[in-house]
Amino acid sequence: MPLLLAQQILAGEIRALASTMTLIENGDPRAKAILKAVYPHTGRAQVIGVTGAAGTGKSTLIDRMTAEYRRRRKTVGILAVDPTSIFSHGALLGDRIRMRAHFVDRGVFIRSFATRGAGGGVAAAVRDAIHLLDAAGKDVIFVETIGVGQDELEIARLVHMVVAVLIPEMGDDVQAMKAGLVEIADIFVVNKTDLPGADVTLQQLRDLFNEFDIVATSASNNDGIQKLVHVIEKRRAQSLGNGQYHRKRLQLCREELLSLLRQRLVAQLRKRLDDQALDAGAKRIAERRVDPYSEVKAIAKKLGF
Amino acid sequence: MPLLLAQQILAGEIRALASTMTLIENGDPRAKAILKAVYPHTGRAQVIGVTGAAGTGKSTLIDRMTAEYRRRRKTVGILAVDPTSIFSHGALLGDRIRMRAHFVDRGVFIRSFATRGAGGGVAAAVRDAIHLLDAAGKDVIFVETIGVGQDELEIARLVHMVVAVLIPEMGDDVQAMKAGLVEIADIFVVNKTDLPGADVTLQQLRDLFNEFDIVATSASNNDGIQKLVHVIEKRRAQSLGNGQYHRKRLQLCREELLSLLRQRLVAQLRKRLDDQALDAGAKRIAERRVDPYSEVKAIAKKLGF
Repeated sequence: MPLLLAQQILAGEIRALASTMTLIENGDPRAKAILKAVYPHTGRAQVIGVTGAAGTGKSTLIDRMTAEYRRRRKTVGILAVDPTSIFSHGALLGDRIRMRAHFVDRGVFIRSFATRGAGGGVAAAVRDAIHLLDAAGKDVIFVETIGVGQDELEIARLVHMVVAVLIPEMGDDVQAMKAGLVEIADIFVVNKTDLPGADVTLQQLRDLFNEFDIVATSASNNDGIQKLVHVIEKRRAQSLGNGQYHRKRLQLCREELLSLLRQRLVAQLRKRLDDQALDAGAKRIAERRVDPYSEVKAIAKKLGF
Repeated sequence: MPLLLAQQILAGEIRALASTMTLIENGDPRAKAILKAVYPHTGRAQVIGVTGAAGTGKSTLIDRMTAEYRRRRKTVGILAVDPTSIFSHGALLGDRIRMRAHFVDRGVFIRSFATRGAGGGVAAAVRDAIHLLDAAGKDVIFVETIGVGQDELEIARLVHMVVAVLIPEMGDDVQAMKAGLVEIADIFVVNKTDLPGADVTLQQLRDLFNEFDIVATSASNNDGIQKLVHVIEKRRAQSLGNGQYHRKRLQLCREELLSLLRQRLVAQLRKRLDDQALDAGAKRIAERRVDPYSEVKAIAKKLGF
């Protein structure tokens, strides 16, 4: 069954892709067998993070870039990470459903991921989803996030290149954002350049980030999209030429290895540690007969860790 | 040195408290020695989560509740969790600085935590900070979050009781939020009842959550605050009486134990796994000579995990 699904994914079958994504999202152990089977066929996709605050028009921007890549005969995968909020379920999901002109194009696969539920955290689930899309032959994979919180910062570390999306109104804050942005972004986009203040924001960005590529777009008017894709492709070609891409790939593999090792260890821990021992330890701590740090040491010793 | 700090914390010295908080936030190993020394003196504080979307007036609400608890001769600690965003550093921090009438009151300790940097994640840092404030003799500890993302949902699981803050404008979405809120909230507050639509929101909440306590407040007008504190104290008394508080404490100790065990395992992993082995594995994966899942298995076996 997993191997049939793996074959179907390699053949680019959308249903197999969708149902395996669900296995990943639910932390279902069958996902690993499929991932293992398709893994030799990965490593060709170009993975682009697109990150920006809510309301910056990321979805529209990705839709327009997708159209441009489709025009260039490339297939596209889109993974949108939906930060789970107990206060805005409706709003965030609504946003996802509103967008997306490419739902009927078989060359485009779109999936949202919620930040909760996934076994090893959402970053691990997104990483697995990238492998799947890669194996299914998608040339370009966009990973869309709002860049808030630890999970999302981890996701930014799963991609080859990050496009940070700003809008004119945010101009005043650019200086304050500098540290966070430098750490994460490769290309800056000022979207919604039809809004007042676009020139000021662009100038501020150019002053602060003079070694970065900065592109002005108005995604809803389809302005600047070809330029943006051109800049992305130029950077990709450069990084392929100067060894940067190779180093980045090694680094991603290294991080995946560490992350999987951590997951495996935690799973081992739960296998070796019975509930009774855990409950007894918790009781000793709750009664302040021992501090948690000493109790952990004692348990770890007993388990041989 | 750690033990001197521990003594000062137990004596309620604010500087010692603040510098140990910094050690925790930076994941400094000296923090653990201090925590271990003060741990026997913890377990008395009442820990209250206050969670609500940005703009619901959580900070003002906490300020007013703090004033009410101070009137009742209780000391208060406030931990505000600041979700790190690469796009809104300025805005979020600004928010924190704007508020807080109690900065000069020695019976109130206030601290913000960013969601990045902390060694074992922000939830672990907040848990340690709660222990410190508890050991320093704070009677009531408020933990303020915006309830977005995995980290924040974890934080909601560190407290004895969660107050969820809504405002009238959010009325339409209450139905959609139901699942997330039921899972996490103990008491609902409709704040900003001076805004139009407050009655509708209150009625919707009463229909949807008829087994919950629902309190109307206007924090900026100091309306409903005494009622809210009364409801919190009533629930606390109930949970002390019916064993619920006792079970919750055991559960928190259990989760802390598991979380510390996981941290310890991951630290052990990095100790036993040399960089060379990791790099060699990453290279094999990057060249697709092996898949990451098989490589992990091989490394784990070699390390005896």
